[in-house]
Amino acid sequence: MDGKYLPNIKSPADVKKIPEAELPELAAEIRQELIETVSKNGGHLASNLGVVELTIALHRVFHSPQDKIIWDVSHQSYVHKLLTGRADRFDSLRLPGGISGFTRRSESEHDIMSGGHSSVALSAAYGVAAANRIKKQKNYTVAVVGDGAFTGGMVYEALNNAGRAGNGTRLIVILNDNEMSISPNVGALAKYFAVMRANPRYFRMKARTENALNHIPLVGKKLAKGLYSLKTHVKNLIYNSTMFEDLGFRYMGPVDGHDIPHLIAALEGAKAANYPIVLHVNTVKGKGYEFAEKAPDAFHGVSAFDLVSGEPIFRETSFSEKFGEFLVQAARKDSRICCITAAMSLGTGTDAFRREFPDRFFDVGIAEQHAATFAAGLAAGGMLPVFAVYSTFLQRSYDQIIHDCAMQGLKIVFAIDRAGFVGSDGESHQGIFDAAFLNTIPDITVLAPTTFGELNSFLVQAFYHTDGPVAIRYPRGIEPEVPEDFEDSFRAFDLYGDPARDTALVTYGRCFAEACRAKAALAEQGRDVFIIKLNMIKPVANDAVKAALHCRRVFFFEEGQRYGGIGETFGDKLFKYGYKGDYKNTAVEGEFPKQDTVKGQLHRYRLDAEGMVEVVRG
Amino acid sequence: MDGKYLPNIKSPADVKKIPEAELPELAAEIRQELIETVSKNGGHLASNLGVVELTIALHRVFHSPQDKIIWDVSHQSYVHKLLTGRADRFDSLRLPGGISGFTRRSESEHDIMSGGHSSVALSAAYGVAAANRIKKQKNYTVAVVGDGAFTGGMVYEALNNAGRAGNGTRLIVILNDNEMSISPNVGALAKYFAVMRANPRYFRMKARTENALNHIPLVGKKLAKGLYSLKTHVKNLIYNSTMFEDLGFRYMGPVDGHDIPHLIAALEGAKAANYPIVLHVNTVKGKGYEFAEKAPDAFHGVSAFDLVSGEPIFRETSFSEKFGEFLVQAARKDSRICCITAAMSLGTGTDAFRREFPDRFFDVGIAEQHAATFAAGLAAGGMLPVFAVYSTFLQRSYDQIIHDCAMQGLKIVFAIDRAGFVGSDGESHQGIFDAAFLNTIPDITVLAPTTFGELNSFLVQAFYHTDGPVAIRYPRGIEPEVPEDFEDSFRAFDLYGDPARDTALVTYGRCFAEACRAKAALAEQGRDVFIIKLNMIKPVANDAVKAALHCRRVFFFEEGQRYGGIGETFGDKLFKYGYKGDYKNTAVEGEFPKQDTVKGQLHRYRLDAEGMVEVVRG
Repeated sequence: MDGKYLPNIKSPADVKKIPEAELPELAAEIRQELIETVSKNGGHLASNLGVVELTIALHRVFHSPQDKIIWDVSHQSYVHKLLTGRADRFDSLRLPGGISGFTRRSESEHDIMSGGHSSVALSAAYGVAAANRIKKQKNYTVAVVGDGAFTGGMVYEALNNAGRAGNGTRLIVILNDNEMSISPNVGALAKYFAVMRANPRYFRMKARTENALNHIPLVGKKLAKGLYSLKTHVKNLIYNSTMFEDLGFRYMGPVDGHDIPHLIAALEGAKAANYPIVLHVNTVKGKGYEFAEKAPDAFHGVSAFDLVSGEPIFRETSFSEKFGEFLVQAARKDSRICCITAAMSLGTGTDAFRREFPDRFFDVGIAEQHAATFAAGLAAGGMLPVFAVYSTFLQRSYDQIIHDCAMQGLKIVFAIDRAGFVGSDGESHQGIFDAAFLNTIPDITVLAPTTFGELNSFLVQAFYHTDGPVAIRYPRGIEPEVPEDFEDSFRAFDLYGDPARDTALVTYGRCFAEACRAKAALAEQGRDVFIIKLNMIKPVANDAVKAALHCRRVFFFEEGQRYGGIGETFGDKLFKYGYKGDYKNTAVEGEFPKQDTVKGQLHRYRLDAEGMVEVVRG
Repeated sequence: MDGKYLPNIKSPADVKKIPEAELPELAAEIRQELIETVSKNGGHLASNLGVVELTIALHRVFHSPQDKIIWDVSHQSYVHKLLTGRADRFDSLRLPGGISGFTRRSESEHDIMSGGHSSVALSAAYGVAAANRIKKQKNYTVAVVGDGAFTGGMVYEALNNAGRAGNGTRLIVILNDNEMSISPNVGALAKYFAVMRANPRYFRMKARTENALNHIPLVGKKLAKGLYSLKTHVKNLIYNSTMFEDLGFRYMGPVDGHDIPHLIAALEGAKAANYPIVLHVNTVKGKGYEFAEKAPDAFHGVSAFDLVSGEPIFRETSFSEKFGEFLVQAARKDSRICCITAAMSLGTGTDAFRREFPDRFFDVGIAEQHAATFAAGLAAGGMLPVFAVYSTFLQRSYDQIIHDCAMQGLKIVFAIDRAGFVGSDGESHQGIFDAAFLNTIPDITVLAPTTFGELNSFLVQAFYHTDGPVAIRYPRGIEPEVPEDFEDSFRAFDLYGDPARDTALVTYGRCFAEACRAKAALAEQGRDVFIIKLNMIKPVANDAVKAALHCRRVFFFEEGQRYGGIGETFGDKLFKYGYKGDYKNTAVEGEFPKQDTVKGQLHRYRLDAEGMVEVVRG
C-alpha cells in the first residue's frame, strides 16, 4: 500500500487529523488501493469507487464506534474498512482467512452488523437509534442505503416504523443514489428518484444556494448547518413534499457525493436535525476508474481482472449462462414462458431473455417476496413463470413459496442459482439453506442437476411433466466433470457403480462429481462402493431409498445444512423401511461457512472426494 | 337465511339484476347473515361488515370470474362468498368440511388466490394483469387491500413493479381505508393516510363535486366517468401528488365506501382509466353492528359471541395471555426488555406491555421482516428485544432470522404463538412450519413449553441463560392437562415413566399431554412405555437421544411438518449413535391441514392420545 495518508490511518481519529484540503489526495490513494486489490482478489469495485468521498466525510463528521454507521448490503464498505484500522490487511480481501467483502461483527467494532443481504440496514439502524433513545444516549446512527435497495419492501416497513419516532431520534438515512446500476431503471421508483435527482427548478435553486455557500467562508459548523436548514426549508416551500416526508422523515438533498466539503456540511446539517432524516446523495458508480464508470454493471461484483484493459482474467461457461440459453430456447417454443429476476439479470444469466422477450421479462427490483407472489399471479393468469434467483436471496421468499405458490398448487419454476457453497462471499451468501427450507414445504418438487444436460432436461420436465411449483437448484460456476461411463437417466435418481455392493454413497448436485472421484479412489484401495445420485431431492424417491436397503453402510453427503436437510429425510425413510445397517450423514452442521474457495469449503466439510474417502474409511 | 334478495343470489349475475335502489336492502340482509353466522361460528366480523357495499358495487361493475377480484388476506371475503354462489353453505363457515374463512381456489372459480397472509394481493393481481396484457386480454384485475396491509413491504415492492406498467394494464387497487383497526395508528403511514382522508381542502372540493353529482341525474356510466375524471383532475391540480402517483399509479378518492351509487360511479371511473390506478375508499369497520363499530379491534377475529350483548360466550386463560403476564413481570425487573409486535398486540397478549411500557413497545405494522431485523438492531444497541408473533407469520422473517439475527449472534427472543394446529383458520394459518424452518438455522435455540410454568421458566432462560437468538413456541389456546405426578425439570428434556422400558414415545409441546394419556391407555392394555419430552427442540440434546438407545421401539410424534422436522433430526441422531431398533416418526406429511377443530386436526394426523395408541399398537 502506497500513499502519503492511507498507510497512516489506524482508526477514524486519523481521518479527522488530515487537513480538509488534503482529503481529495486521501480519496485518490483509496481509489488506487481499491482498484489494485479488487483487480487481484475480485469483489465489488464500482460501488466502492462511488462512495470514497462519502465514507471519508462520514468518518470526519461522526465518531464511530460510538456513533454507528450501518452499510446496507455492505458490499460498499471497503472504504470504511480502509479507514477503520483494516488498511494493512486489505490485501487479504475475500481470501481464505482474510478480511470479508462485507461488514462482519467479528472483524471490527466499527462493523455494527454483519451484512450481505439488501434493504435491511434501515431496520437495524432504527433498532440501534431506538435503543439509544430509550437509554437517553445522544449518539447518532447512520444507515447508508443504495437507491437499488429501496426497491426492497423492508425499507418501507422501516421508514413506516421509524417515521413517527420524531424528535430525539438521531437516525440519519443516506440515500446513496447511484442510479441503481446493478440493473438500471427498475420500476417506478427509479423514475421517481430520477425526477428528484434532476428536478430543474431544484437545480436552479441549488445552484444559487451553492453559489451563496461558496462565497461565504466556512467559518464553522453552525453556519454550515444554518445554510443547510435554510436550503431544506426553501426547497420544501417550493416543491412537493417527497415520499420520505409523507412517511414522517425530513428530507435533505440531493448533494454531490464527490464534493467532500459539501458532504461534510450536509452531514453536519443532518446531525443538527435531531430527527429522523433522509439525506439524498448523488454518487457515480465506478468513479475514478474509466472502465467501471462506463460499465458499472460489469464492475458491480467482479472476479479478478486485468488492471490495464479492464478485462476479466479468465472465463468459463457457467451454469448461469447455460440456464439463460436453455430458458431462451424454451421460450422461443412456448409463448407462455415468462422470466422474473430480482435485480439480478446479469448474475442469473437472463439478460439474453430480457433482450429477446422484453414483454415477458420482469426485473422487479430487489424484491424477492414480491417476485414469488407475482410469479404466482402470472401462473394464475395462464403463464409459465420462471423466477431466476440466487439460493441465498430466495430465503426471503420462504413464506410466499408456502402461501402463494405451494398452497395454490400453481406451476411456478424457481431457477435457483448459487446453490451450495459460493466461495469468497462467505457466511452471508452461502446457498446452503434452500434444500432444507424447501424440504419443509408441501407440494413442491426440487430437482438438483449435476450437469448442463440435466439442467436442460429438468427445466423441460419442470415446465411440462411436473405438477405444482418446481425448484431447480444448481451451483455457482462451471459444470463439474463426471466420469465418461456415467449415463444420465434424467429420472428421479441414478445408480452409478455396482448396486449390489454393500456400501452406498448417496448425494446430489455438484457433490456427485466428488463422489465419483471418491469411488475411484476407494476402488484403488480395494473398497468397492456404488453411488445413489438423487436428481429429485424432494420428494426423495422411495426406490432411491430401497436401493440402499441391502447395504451394510450408507453414507449421505450434502452440500448444505444437515439439520432439516435431505440427508435427514433419507435417513428417516431408511428407518421407515426397517433399515438396520449403519447410516452416516455428512453435511454442514449448524454453522455459517466462512469465506474460502469453493474447493476449500467442500474440503472443510469433507464433501470433496478426499473428505468422502476419509469418511468412508472411518 | 332470510331476506328478499340474498337467498336468490346464485352468482354475481344475480347481483346485477337487482334494481340499484334496492341494493341497500341487499346490504342489510347481508349484514344480518354475517352477524348471525359469525356469532355462532366465530370469524372475522368487523372487516366484513365494513365491505358490504364495496363488495356489492364490485360485483355490479366487474364480471367475475373473467375479471379477477383478489382480496388481500381475504378475511374480508365473506360478502364476496355470499354473492358468488356460496350463500346456501354460508352457515358452514369455518366448520370442519365447511367453507373457509378465507378465499380458497378449491372452493370457487371466483377465488383466484387462496388467501390468509397479508400484503400479497397486489403482487398476485399485477401478475394476473401482466398475463392479461401479454395475452392481449381486456379483462380487469382488482386487488382489495386494507390500509393495514400497506404497512407490509410487499405492497411497495408490487407498487414499484406495477407502477411503470402504464397504459393498457388494467389493474385497479382498492385501498380499503378503515383506519387500520387491528392495531390503530401504527406508523407513519397511518398518519399519512389520515391526512389524505381528512384533507379539508379536499373535502370542500369533494362536497362541491358531490353536490354537483347529486344534482345531475345518473343518466349513464359515461357521465359518471366524466365527472370522476374531472374530479381527479381537479384534485391533482389542487393537491400535492400522492405517494401512489410518485410510484406511477393514478389515484382517485377518497370515496365513501358505504354509498353504493358513489362506489359504482367511482369503479366505473377506475375501469375507464385503462392504467394502474389506486382507488381510495373510506369504510367503517363493524358498520351496522353497534358493538363491532365501537370496538372493531375486539371484533376483528372473534370466537362465538352472544348476539345481543356482543360478549364472547366463554373464555379461558390462553398461552397468549400468560405470555403477556410473564413478559410484563420480566420487564418490570429489567429495563432492557423491549417488546415488538407486527400489528398483533391483542392476539399475542402484549397489550398490557404496551400500556405499562409504551417507550419499550413497538408495533411495527404488518412487517415481520422489518420486525426481526429491527429486533436485531435493538439488541445491537444493548436491549433485550422480544418479537411476539404467530408461527405462520414468522415464516416471513426466515431470511432475517438467518441473516440479521443468527449470523450476528445477537440475543433476540422470538415468542412464537399459535405454534402447531390452529383449528378453523385452516391451511393458510397452521403453525406447522416453524419447528422445521428454525431447525435449518445455525446458532438458534428453540424451546417448546407444554405448560404455563415452563413458558415462564423458558422465557427467563432465554433472557439470561442462553446465547444468541432463542425461540419459544407455544400453541394457540389453553394449557393442556398433564399428569399430577409429572415434575418439570425445566431442562433440555424430561423423562416421564420408567426409562428402562423398551418402548419410548418422544414428543414436545402440546403433544406431551396427549402422549401422557396414550401412555396411560397403553398401560391399561398391559404395554408400558415411557416418554421423552423434549423441552429444547433445537439443538436436540444428545442425552435425550441416548435415553432412547436401549429401546426396541422409538416413536416420535410431532405437531408439525415431518420433512425437515425435529423427528427427522432425532432419527438422524439415533443413527449417529448406532441405534438398531425400530424408529417411527409421525407428523404432518407434506400437506396443508384443512380447517377443523384443533382436536380434529390432532386426530387426523394421529397426534392425539388415541392416534398415538394406534401407532404404537401398529
